Amino acid sequence: MERGKTLMEAARELGVEIESVCGQKRTCGKCKVRIEEGFFQRYGIVSGMDHVSPLSEDEAKFIKGSDRANGIRLACQAQVLGDLLVFVPEASRRVKQVVRKAATERVIPIAPAVKKYYVELPKPSLTDTLDDFGRLTSALASTYDLLDLEIDYTVLTTLPGKLRDADWKVTASIWMGKKIIKVEPGFVEDVHGLAVDIGTTTVVGFLTDMRTGEVLATESMMNPQVAYGEDVMSRITFAMSQDGGLQTMHAAIIDGLNTIAQRSARQVGIQPEDILEMTVVGNTIMHHIFLNIDPRYVGVSPFPPARKRSIDVRAGDLGLKINPSANVHVLPNEAGFVGADNVGVLIAEEPYNQDEVVLIIDIGTNGELVLGNRHRLVSCSCATGPALEGAHIHFGMRATPGAIERVKIDPSTLDVHFKVIGKPEWHTNYPDGEVGARGICGSGVIDAVAEMFKAGIVLKSGAFARNIDSPRVTLTPDGKPQFVIAWARETSIGQDITVSLKDVRAVQLAKGALYCGAKILLRRFGVSKPDKVILAGAFGSYIDREQALVLGLFPDCDLEKVYSVGNAAGDGARIALLNVGKRAEADEVARRVEYVELATEPDFQREFAEAMYIPHQKDEFPHIQERLNVSF
Amino acid sequence: MERGKTLMEAARELGVEIESVCGQKRTCGKCKVRIEEGFFQRYGIVSGMDHVSPLSEDEAKFIKGSDRANGIRLACQAQVLGDLLVFVPEASRRVKQVVRKAATERVIPIAPAVKKYYVELPKPSLTDTLDDFGRLTSALASTYDLLDLEIDYTVLTTLPGKLRDADWKVTASIWMGKKIIKVEPGFVEDVHGLAVDIGTTTVVGFLTDMRTGEVLATESMMNPQVAYGEDVMSRITFAMSQDGGLQTMHAAIIDGLNTIAQRSARQVGIQPEDILEMTVVGNTIMHHIFLNIDPRYVGVSPFPPARKRSIDVRAGDLGLKINPSANVHVLPNEAGFVGADNVGVLIAEEPYNQDEVVLIIDIGTNGELVLGNRHRLVSCSCATGPALEGAHIHFGMRATPGAIERVKIDPSTLDVHFKVIGKPEWHTNYPDGEVGARGICGSGVIDAVAEMFKAGIVLKSGAFARNIDSPRVTLTPDGKPQFVIAWARETSIGQDITVSLKDVRAVQLAKGALYCGAKILLRRFGVSKPDKVILAGAFGSYIDREQALVLGLFPDCDLEKVYSVGNAAGDGARIALLNVGKRAEADEVARRVEYVELATEPDFQREFAEAMYIPHQKDEFPHIQERLNVSF
Repeated sequence: MERGKTLMEAARELGVEIESVCGQKRTCGKCKVRIEEGFFQRYGIVSGMDHVSPLSEDEAKFIKGSDRANGIRLACQAQVLGDLLVFVPEASRRVKQVVRKAATERVIPIAPAVKKYYVELPKPSLTDTLDDFGRLTSALASTYDLLDLEIDYTVLTTLPGKLRDADWKVTASIWMGKKIIKVEPGFVEDVHGLAVDIGTTTVVGFLTDMRTGEVLATESMMNPQVAYGEDVMSRITFAMSQDGGLQTMHAAIIDGLNTIAQRSARQVGIQPEDILEMTVVGNTIMHHIFLNIDPRYVGVSPFPPARKRSIDVRAGDLGLKINPSANVHVLPNEAGFVGADNVGVLIAEEPYNQDEVVLIIDIGTNGELVLGNRHRLVSCSCATGPALEGAHIHFGMRATPGAIERVKIDPSTLDVHFKVIGKPEWHTNYPDGEVGARGICGSGVIDAVAEMFKAGIVLKSGAFARNIDSPRVTLTPDGKPQFVIAWARETSIGQDITVSLKDVRAVQLAKGALYCGAKILLRRFGVSKPDKVILAGAFGSYIDREQALVLGLFPDCDLEKVYSVGNAAGDGARIALLNVGKRAEADEVARRVEYVELATEPDFQREFAEAMYIPHQKDEFPHIQERLNVSF
Repeated sequence: MERGKTLMEAARELGVEIESVCGQKRTCGKCKVRIEEGFFQRYGIVSGMDHVSPLSEDEAKFIKGSDRANGIRLACQAQVLGDLLVFVPEASRRVKQVVRKAATERVIPIAPAVKKYYVELPKPSLTDTLDDFGRLTSALASTYDLLDLEIDYTVLTTLPGKLRDADWKVTASIWMGKKIIKVEPGFVEDVHGLAVDIGTTTVVGFLTDMRTGEVLATESMMNPQVAYGEDVMSRITFAMSQDGGLQTMHAAIIDGLNTIAQRSARQVGIQPEDILEMTVVGNTIMHHIFLNIDPRYVGVSPFPPARKRSIDVRAGDLGLKINPSANVHVLPNEAGFVGADNVGVLIAEEPYNQDEVVLIIDIGTNGELVLGNRHRLVSCSCATGPALEGAHIHFGMRATPGAIERVKIDPSTLDVHFKVIGKPEWHTNYPDGEVGARGICGSGVIDAVAEMFKAGIVLKSGAFARNIDSPRVTLTPDGKPQFVIAWARETSIGQDITVSLKDVRAVQLAKGALYCGAKILLRRFGVSKPDKVILAGAFGSYIDREQALVLGLFPDCDLEKVYSVGNAAGDGARIALLNVGKRAEADEVARRVEYVELATEPDFQREFAEAMYIPHQKDEFPHIQERLNVSF
């Protein structure tokens, strides 16, 4: 290594990238490294023997006390004078890493779409009459090797005043290494982005530090479009039947996102205008309405979306009140009913990088399945309906305080033990009012039906057994059997909370659709069972995997190989926010996945009918056989 | 050539591009060619001997009567069966040419930013669920080899309905071969663009057929910003001193351009939304205000513009009511006071492609000079003031009916002959009211002062001669000499129209600034005189070149080599509209031109003082020596 080079230059030549936020202007102190060998001072040896230049005045400002003795230096300042062994701490490495909790532990390198660069510009003079834009871009080119930069038009309109007010010392935010989207005075290093998951029911935003990957604030709200229809089909109907219906729903979600941006910004102590990038996932209908695209044709056969490929739209053009020059990256759709949310799941779980055959089940109002491995991916959409989320269940409710979320039934006594959200303990036969159950949410419904099956209350066909002698088996007003989960005295609603035959049928329809979809995908792929099952979606996190398998929500699999990964779609949005390479990967995988239209499969009806049984009419479940200790 | 190929395929292999508007769908009939040899039918020889396939049914729809006998065929249909000699008529050639009247005759090949392409898409089905965007781009890729197309976001929002309403037969307008900016039903071939020259005083728009280069409508109006200041400096002052002053002037010019777009569209029978591209030239201040950029810093030393490089802005983002997805290309600036209008002149006149040293003088409210040839270009800006346009002259007026535009003075009698705009004949001593002169415009002022000098009424210094005995030499109310051009009885304003000493001084200041600028540029360039002088700007078209030289408006030059090229800035806007290659050329030349700041030249004051003399204190004018038959 040439004598006199800075450690940063030397490192670069060796292919090691050290953080240089200020462009080696000695103003950020971000390029700290530690001299491990070749720095003799720490052993009390005179500094003349050091293989590194003495501490400069500028370095002294950033390196104090014991750090000095420990050989901490600024890589942009310290010069190589001889052989050195240098350690680059995590914080000083240019590529930081974010670890995501996934079915497979995975590390996402941080390579965000927006980075900030500080520059000090020479002032214009009669011998240097470069234009303001040229002055800024030349400085960025010479300091950071950023070439051929363009500037967002609205940023250009205020550039002259900005540069002069800042006395020509500014930080430029640059999108994709090619477009200046913000210019602010002085040295600024924080970069904020917002990853958004637009669910049919719930919208979540993750305000993220784009340099570290850290989620600084999470804000969620009910999708304001719920006022215009609970599920995607009713939203399509609203768009078609109401004058300006699409615009109304589009404005509603934009307003909602503006609220999320504002609230999360306030939490973190920034302005919404400081948000410089947004990524969006959502199902195809949410995608279309968010982009103000008529979704009606997605609702009728052959269900083509307006656009599959990802799209970049300027925030200002969408009416989003983050930085108007910020880019909004909307992930691609796979098909009419497999949307950008599912692509989010895919880039989070990366089945396409695995040897095992993975079955990914994303359970929301609609169910989306993907099956495959590195060689091939097939997907389908299942009309599960909202039963698995507790809707269209007589005592169903959202997973909010007061909801019964866990149920156990003693097979011998038929005593019910249950757990209520917001209460720390399990309950059985409590006195009045103490428990305050108000209804039963999705995971509670799954538990209840699975337990009722294991206890012999409902049969494989879903029908109630006729020979049960228990006060808990009662009749609905229309004379159908039901099973009491919580007595009226245990509730705050003054009546028994039950699961009726009708509720069981609704669960059967939903789980049958999922199972049938999975089975058709397995056949298409040419395997009999998945090696691994991933349950995505918030709902997937709450359900008991064993109960789900008892119910036959998906084909038999070793329970050790069934993972709940939570809001993987949201994780996908965050990953796309933090790593632009994953955006290209998303487009690639969205193109590659083979979509299977279940309704056109020749034996769909038969498969569906068989899958309605608990856990299935014919299929074996060796992994839970011993748990199904009932026979009829 | 392989037997059975179509003439179009065969032509393409030979490097000849034939028009194919419909993508060989047999719906446009634009690819007509004429078989010159190898077509024996016309000689009454049986068609079996023809070296070309027989006329198809589809061809028969487009080729009637004598055209058939003359061997006219559609290149996309007729197949090569043997040796043929084929003529491709101008109209069928893909690259059309537009000829511009310039100092040097020049041909601009047509290569516009926007082209239209007709496609017929397969309808989606359960076995072909391609998304609408993918369906459109695949068809464009397979029919026209247009790859990696993107789509303007707002066009995407309405794409699903557009495609279906058009029964999947649409014409896509594509910008720069990469972005779809309009989708319309059926087969459409007209492409319209608007080239705009924003002058400080006058705004002109040329609505142009982008396929032929033909100007379909020309609309002009006074720049509505005139209400906020007559010249650029007063507009800067307005922007600085008034709250929202910039926005007010920006909105005024956008409104003005919308009016021009609307009027010209109406003339041609199209909608403003059919305008799919706009190019804009203007001086740096007009450029900044049009783009809503604060121009104040252009007004103070060292006068840096906010941006030199050309810029593309979406029409909708500027509030322009042409097609909102249309691109607006604003040509680059050269320097603070040499703007995009001058760049327009340069790409129209192309001094950078010439061996001769060309002096280009663009005379408007401000004067801009460029000197150079293929090796080097230097430019400067001269504060001529508006005297040369007839403003700040006591009886000055714009070049409108009633203005004296030509003046001759008989040196022996001092009789004045003059011509009034709107009257066909020259006049001398007419009875009352007959002539109706109301004032004197720029070209008239130049004529008058030059003639007064040649007649000995004013001296080389600009002072009035003391020994003139004529009733036409009178005194102004403040006792300064003046010369009567038109007697009160010849006017419609009831008083003598005169040119006073003060008026002569104003002309001297203006012409001195121009001359001095030219001389400094010549010295910088290292030559003593230009080979050629080009007078650009509407004003340059009206002045008498000889009179201008007598006055010393520019250095001596053979009058045969002095050209008036009219609104060359506007021509530049039209050229940039029709040929995208010229846009790159514009950026290149704007970067190359070396700007000379006159005020910082060491001997500027002396040069300026010398240049105030008529024609100059010292310099020789051999080309007009015999005409300067006066001695003092």
